[in-house]
Amino acid sequence: MPAKLDPDTRETTLATLQDGGWSVVEGRDALHKTFKFKDFSEAFGWMTRVALLAEKMDHHPEWSNVYKTVEVTLTSHDVGGLSERDVKMAQAIDEMA
Amino acid sequence: MPAKLDPDTRETTLATLQDGGWSVVEGRDALHKTFKFKDFSEAFGWMTRVALLAEKMDHHPEWSNVYKTVEVTLTSHDVGGLSERDVKMAQAIDEMA
Repeated sequence: MPAKLDPDTRETTLATLQDGGWSVVEGRDALHKTFKFKDFSEAFGWMTRVALLAEKMDHHPEWSNVYKTVEVTLTSHDVGGLSERDVKMAQAIDEMA
Repeated sequence: MPAKLDPDTRETTLATLQDGGWSVVEGRDALHKTFKFKDFSEAFGWMTRVALLAEKMDHHPEWSNVYKTVEVTLTSHDVGGLSERDVKMAQAIDEMA
């Protein structure tokens, strides 16, 4: 099981992700980002790629979709907060968007 | 553009859907249902089938997914409430689940 983010690296790691549009969810140790696409087809196509990655990593986002908008929240339920897996997934998701 | 649901048929149509687990969202003219699956793979596989249908019908759900749970909300933004398209989509979605 991955540990929570190391306090020493946490600050710099989160700062980098926040520069990239991720924000820490108020009242939860979780990351959130809104992704906008051209239309539903593009949005869901992207979701499908993220779903394949999520299944491969055995780490799944909380997410919602309304037409061309996808809201993604990442956290590690098993450690009760952000872990290295969330950071890796956030980076991989950004690369696909 | 499809019209809002005919008041005469609305009551019986919604009653049937409510028997099937759909509920009218408080404060919105929209339908909601929670779907539970075995795991993420099954949940997202089902979402993919619904996405193909949505694109074909040019009518898209508002939905969210957390692991094996999918929350679906249906409404017709263009008519500001429930239309025949929502009823058709609710029925089709149920058949796929």
